[in-house]
Amino acid sequence: MPEPFLLGVLGGMGPLATLDFQHQLLEATDAGSDQQHLPSVVWNVPQVADRQKALAGNGPSPLPQLLTGIKKLNQAGASHIVIPCNTAHHWYPELSHASDAPVLHIVDTVVDKLIQASEKPQRVGIIATQGTLDAGWFQQRLNAQGIETIIADKSELETWFVPGCYAVKRGHLIEGGQLLSLQAQALLTRGAQQLVLACTEVPVALRAVNAPFLSLTHDPARLLAERCSRLWQDYRLTYLA
Amino acid sequence: MPEPFLLGVLGGMGPLATLDFQHQLLEATDAGSDQQHLPSVVWNVPQVADRQKALAGNGPSPLPQLLTGIKKLNQAGASHIVIPCNTAHHWYPELSHASDAPVLHIVDTVVDKLIQASEKPQRVGIIATQGTLDAGWFQQRLNAQGIETIIADKSELETWFVPGCYAVKRGHLIEGGQLLSLQAQALLTRGAQQLVLACTEVPVALRAVNAPFLSLTHDPARLLAERCSRLWQDYRLTYLA
Repeated sequence: MPEPFLLGVLGGMGPLATLDFQHQLLEATDAGSDQQHLPSVVWNVPQVADRQKALAGNGPSPLPQLLTGIKKLNQAGASHIVIPCNTAHHWYPELSHASDAPVLHIVDTVVDKLIQASEKPQRVGIIATQGTLDAGWFQQRLNAQGIETIIADKSELETWFVPGCYAVKRGHLIEGGQLLSLQAQALLTRGAQQLVLACTEVPVALRAVNAPFLSLTHDPARLLAERCSRLWQDYRLTYLA
Repeated sequence: MPEPFLLGVLGGMGPLATLDFQHQLLEATDAGSDQQHLPSVVWNVPQVADRQKALAGNGPSPLPQLLTGIKKLNQAGASHIVIPCNTAHHWYPELSHASDAPVLHIVDTVVDKLIQASEKPQRVGIIATQGTLDAGWFQQRLNAQGIETIIADKSELETWFVPGCYAVKRGHLIEGGQLLSLQAQALLTRGAQQLVLACTEVPVALRAVNAPFLSLTHDPARLLAERCSRLWQDYRLTYLA
């Protein structure tokens, strides 16, 4: 029997997105009682240096605080760790290296979903922070599968994406949803057939305004939650049945 | 400067109620950025022996698993600990004794709210598990303040309360809300002027069906979240301003 299953969640980026991820874990798990739900320990400490500012060179690195979270989750006995924040995956190599428990990469789940679909899209729009877009993980991984990527330009990010995300962080979901809908529509107009909502604030806000194109979107955090839930249910059926 | 503020949440009872409590923490906190939100570490491990069955003498004690959670939260550096589950407070003395960090008692926040109201109620209904009602914390503390308590009888609990709570645990909020509304109406009919919803499944379910008497209810978990948020905001303004 392997070590007990315990999902470590490195959260706090932001705290609302961390809750959204926990809801997705619950929704993804077929459970008839409390005891059948996935066990987790959640480090929801939002006093992490701003990731967008750090990547833009305008603020301190969040890495020391993220490493503290990884250490705490390992000490608590996490068997797997996830980070429900796309931008924080910029520091994935260092965090993964420092962790005894495997850290699942959020991008892997999205790539798997897109290439396994019955009709693989040709052009996919990516809504993400400047830092995530500059790092290029999504573009590289999708291009390698023959999928063209369409991303927001700097002016769109400044007008719609950045103020939309900060509105969500302030709890203004409708205002954020309206701004982020404009960003999404721009990518669809430029030919994107589907959209990856690669920033945890975006799906929360688009659901709040019930955006008409929601069925064309992929939420990496939701896909990650579904993957965690499958791991837990496999473990449960194998070792706890 | 005291040790860093970090709220430890002993959750998992059940996992949905743990999320509800985290939402209440967010809602209770006036924050203009991620970094101003309350830092927490959440032990959301629902593989805890059933509290209602244990108190009824029909199952193992959850105490060893609860003590594990208390130990993990202390190791993670919790400065305060809360347990967003009324019934688990049956084991409060042992858990509080085993914890270096102070464990805030959920009943204290309710008593404070009722006796500080401009018009103190004379008769308050308590919706809770048989175990919580048998233990009598709420009745004793409220009676001591001159407030009469009205509680469900065994037959009402079996017909409405217990199946209502288990429906919520299965994710069936509407079904649970309808059953728990019948329980609440019975106490109001018998003369309760206000209701304490002393089981974390109850307020979630009554909000889901938008029960017409919601304004007469007190949610101990919400009051506990508000108290935690005040502690955090006092700390933030004093030490982090």
